[in-house]
Amino acid sequence: MKRTSYCGALTAADIGQTVTLNGWVDRRRDHGGVIFIDLRDREGIVQVVFDPDAEHCFQLADSCRSEYVLQVTGTVRARSEATVNANMNTGAVEVYGTELEILNSAATPPFQLDDHVQVGEEVRLRYRYMDLRREEMQKGLRLRSAVTSTIRNFLHDSGFLDIETPIMTRATPEGARDYLIPSRTHPGKFFAMPQSPQLFKQLLMVAGFDRYYQIAKCFRDEDLRADRQPEFTQIDIEASFIDEADIMALTQAMISAIFKQHLDVELGEFPSITWRDAMHRYGSDKPDLRLPLELVEIKDLLKDIDFKVFSGPANDPACRVTALKVPGGAQLSRKQIDDYTKFVSIYGAKGLAWIKVNELAAGVDGLQSPIIKFLGDQVTLDIMARLQAQDGDIVFFGADSFSVVSEALGALRCKVGADLNLYSCDWAPLWVVDFPMFEADGKGGLTPLHHPFTAPSCSVEELKADPAAALSRAYDMVLNGVELGGGSIRIHQPTMQAEVFEVLNIGAQEQREKFGFLLDALKYGAPPHGGLAFGLDRLIMLMTGADSIRDVIAFPKTQSAACLMTDAPGAVANEQLRELNIRLRQSATEQ
Amino acid sequence: MKRTSYCGALTAADIGQTVTLNGWVDRRRDHGGVIFIDLRDREGIVQVVFDPDAEHCFQLADSCRSEYVLQVTGTVRARSEATVNANMNTGAVEVYGTELEILNSAATPPFQLDDHVQVGEEVRLRYRYMDLRREEMQKGLRLRSAVTSTIRNFLHDSGFLDIETPIMTRATPEGARDYLIPSRTHPGKFFAMPQSPQLFKQLLMVAGFDRYYQIAKCFRDEDLRADRQPEFTQIDIEASFIDEADIMALTQAMISAIFKQHLDVELGEFPSITWRDAMHRYGSDKPDLRLPLELVEIKDLLKDIDFKVFSGPANDPACRVTALKVPGGAQLSRKQIDDYTKFVSIYGAKGLAWIKVNELAAGVDGLQSPIIKFLGDQVTLDIMARLQAQDGDIVFFGADSFSVVSEALGALRCKVGADLNLYSCDWAPLWVVDFPMFEADGKGGLTPLHHPFTAPSCSVEELKADPAAALSRAYDMVLNGVELGGGSIRIHQPTMQAEVFEVLNIGAQEQREKFGFLLDALKYGAPPHGGLAFGLDRLIMLMTGADSIRDVIAFPKTQSAACLMTDAPGAVANEQLRELNIRLRQSATEQ
Repeated sequence: MKRTSYCGALTAADIGQTVTLNGWVDRRRDHGGVIFIDLRDREGIVQVVFDPDAEHCFQLADSCRSEYVLQVTGTVRARSEATVNANMNTGAVEVYGTELEILNSAATPPFQLDDHVQVGEEVRLRYRYMDLRREEMQKGLRLRSAVTSTIRNFLHDSGFLDIETPIMTRATPEGARDYLIPSRTHPGKFFAMPQSPQLFKQLLMVAGFDRYYQIAKCFRDEDLRADRQPEFTQIDIEASFIDEADIMALTQAMISAIFKQHLDVELGEFPSITWRDAMHRYGSDKPDLRLPLELVEIKDLLKDIDFKVFSGPANDPACRVTALKVPGGAQLSRKQIDDYTKFVSIYGAKGLAWIKVNELAAGVDGLQSPIIKFLGDQVTLDIMARLQAQDGDIVFFGADSFSVVSEALGALRCKVGADLNLYSCDWAPLWVVDFPMFEADGKGGLTPLHHPFTAPSCSVEELKADPAAALSRAYDMVLNGVELGGGSIRIHQPTMQAEVFEVLNIGAQEQREKFGFLLDALKYGAPPHGGLAFGLDRLIMLMTGADSIRDVIAFPKTQSAACLMTDAPGAVANEQLRELNIRLRQSATEQ
Repeated sequence: MKRTSYCGALTAADIGQTVTLNGWVDRRRDHGGVIFIDLRDREGIVQVVFDPDAEHCFQLADSCRSEYVLQVTGTVRARSEATVNANMNTGAVEVYGTELEILNSAATPPFQLDDHVQVGEEVRLRYRYMDLRREEMQKGLRLRSAVTSTIRNFLHDSGFLDIETPIMTRATPEGARDYLIPSRTHPGKFFAMPQSPQLFKQLLMVAGFDRYYQIAKCFRDEDLRADRQPEFTQIDIEASFIDEADIMALTQAMISAIFKQHLDVELGEFPSITWRDAMHRYGSDKPDLRLPLELVEIKDLLKDIDFKVFSGPANDPACRVTALKVPGGAQLSRKQIDDYTKFVSIYGAKGLAWIKVNELAAGVDGLQSPIIKFLGDQVTLDIMARLQAQDGDIVFFGADSFSVVSEALGALRCKVGADLNLYSCDWAPLWVVDFPMFEADGKGGLTPLHHPFTAPSCSVEELKADPAAALSRAYDMVLNGVELGGGSIRIHQPTMQAEVFEVLNIGAQEQREKFGFLLDALKYGAPPHGGLAFGLDRLIMLMTGADSIRDVIAFPKTQSAACLMTDAPGAVANEQLRELNIRLRQSATEQ
């Protein structure tokens, strides 16, 4: 006897049918001498009824406990009107059980599967195979599988070839720390795990594959801030003989198709804004455009006041002085404002000036703020005019270096906007373009804002003349304040690549050692090419509304990069280390 | 101006169209004052003609060299009848070039791309991005991409969820050496890279996902015999509430669909033979059924002769005495037979007796052999009768332990069959089933023939009573003598798993340490489940007819597990090793 249907798939159309089901006991109740078992499989739950008439079954059903694995045969019947459960997909029917086999018993679960919110993540990760039985986790991973399939078919149908690149490779210059693999056959040498398939995908373009994609595992040995994983998954796309517009159109169509198909959401046209505009208007290179709030420059208004906290930065070309108007913010309590002051200090802001707009018609008397006396009445009113402030608003101020003000007020914009629920829409995608090629490395030199293979939008001569002013042909796709993906047109000419290395102060020998094979490849006829990579984990997290990427990864690691279920990483026999030509340092063996 | 068509896609239907092409100069010829450029992209080659009328283009075209990257605009026109090239897809047309841009120049290639056969594999691997430009390599990787897509859609449409499992995990007991990754955050501890996702896929079944698949990277640090790679790709499939027949039907349908869609081959029904039969009839657990040759037991005929070489094994229950009849083999020279004798010695055979059948009607006088005098005339003729020998055959003999005879004559069967081209068909798929659960480990104990999670076909009591006799619920899919894939129904009950560990002499503590999380998982309600894994590299190698899996992997490693292109593995700074809490052994640093 084999399964004829999934539990969760039964509907009124099945009434009268004899079915065989497999699943887990979600709940067993004894009610008026009848046993009710909620039988669960990946498609959902159906109620199975065993009454004493089916004597053998009844005894067995009575012995079932939570998470027992059953095979049930029975007849689908309508529930009585009083017992129809509108909250269940199968709530109109139940199965009258006539045969029952217990395929496996189960010990009492380590935590209640229907009550996960109160369960610590540590227990969930330790018993991940139980945690994954929960509906929320099942749904997340099913969506992930379905979205992955959509992506693959979209790219396949667009002529992209799925080509695998190595996991055991050479260190790549992505900026983060590499995970290493000691080689047994080459004593003293190590493979590095890829932080991305960057160089391989460029080489595939040099090899003439024209259009490549891969859903690739990538690895970064970082200190796991916030929501990072040591291994993560990237949708990696590269094409030849294309420009920015081609890649952006293709990937925008792909993401739009995913949202339409799986969430029934129309993302519409993606606006495109320059990096410079994004920083000025939103204080971020991945602005959350669901929030209608913008930063407004007021440097010119504050140059001549006595109050040095503002006039100092207002007269310093490296600084910015900016106001953020928040509608409805006048209701914020002193305590809340103090909390925001603490919040912006994380980003280096030394304080958080504010003005509440209670009654603008009353002039400065209708405003409430500790700083009006320092600004002066006229300047204060000029600021209100520029901001088009209205009663009920609060205005926050930032005056410091460009980066501190941008980061602090950019983050504050998102935080206050979320706290006051100022979202004007559910989904706000956009492109950020025209990034600088380089940023200061803090040691008097320059470092690439993306990676050293990104093409500038200027000529070799222009780059040489003023590298700090050069813009790159990079583009990021941002959704709801999260960077979904980023990419660029790459350098395909050896002279340009050499010049970029020159700007980065990477000498000929280092070029040769680190990127010799890429430089060789560019020499033998590299086509113009570019691409883009999306973070799959983040995309699915956004789509499911999960709190963490850990919730959309089947077997994730903790923040200290451990797997609580398998207890990895683990100790290794000395003999194995000897074969690999390594030994532990004393400090490690002592722990 | 953007590309309007691939070079290789132009046909007579395009005549009169203005097209823009991108591609590489495959060949440039100057013929009667006209420049002919064969322009190549991933779809093929088209001839572009530049004549002196288009003056600017002509000069530029004249300057092009092999592997230059071009953008060409021109008009498609019919070739004159005399110049039509039937060997090219585009051979009926050519493009009359009116605009030309050199997108990139190219140094002289390190080897001729159209002449690869004479190029050593080392050069090909070092300049892999050039090697991959060759039509054969392009075709292989395109087929790989297309087959992968077919597999994914087949499994997706069959309700399988694509779920990723970790690359950084704990050592798994697959028998080979693990690659290790030192942990920085857990000093002295190591991740292991998976030899297969075996335990994770079982846990996904425990978690209730019901049907899982993954095209997964797997890793084995083996001494690379023959055609192995340190990282390889597995099509990994697992399902719950199914039996052998379900998995075999599903995967047979999948492989059949692939062969039909991509090679237009009907594989037909796959015969199923037991492991025991396969060993007896073909001397192999992955027999090549394209060859109609079978081994025939003759033990009973040789028990009473004086010749100890045969009568010894014939009277030893641990030995087998077997004959292999090869039609047409009477033509083999003494030299060839000597070579086969050397060949079987690799497998431990101490010699290779043979009889040529020249004219059977003449009795033993019509036979030619050094051993007839030892066998005696009657025994010789009895053997000929049992084998139904015919004029022109040769008969080889094996008499030794079961394993030596099976391996030696099994290998000889394939070698002679290939040398004499005795294949009766192009494709011969089959299933091998009813494997033994265990084999002797050579130290008086037992070791699993597959892995310790394979379910036996008997009860716990029967297993306990006679473990050596137990058969497993494992199955291998074999095609043309190559094991394409293998799998089994897994143990889902803790008592059975404990008994198998008992048989393998794995104590409670070792069970806990190595497989604690699996044993826990089985306790909490594991469903009956099983699966199968295919080697993708081998599948594509078979389908393309490539000599090596290296030819169907974009960036493979050498037999010493190195990448000649990136020069991986590489040296690592001491600082990095210190962060990872390891140091090199003296022996490694000295090299």
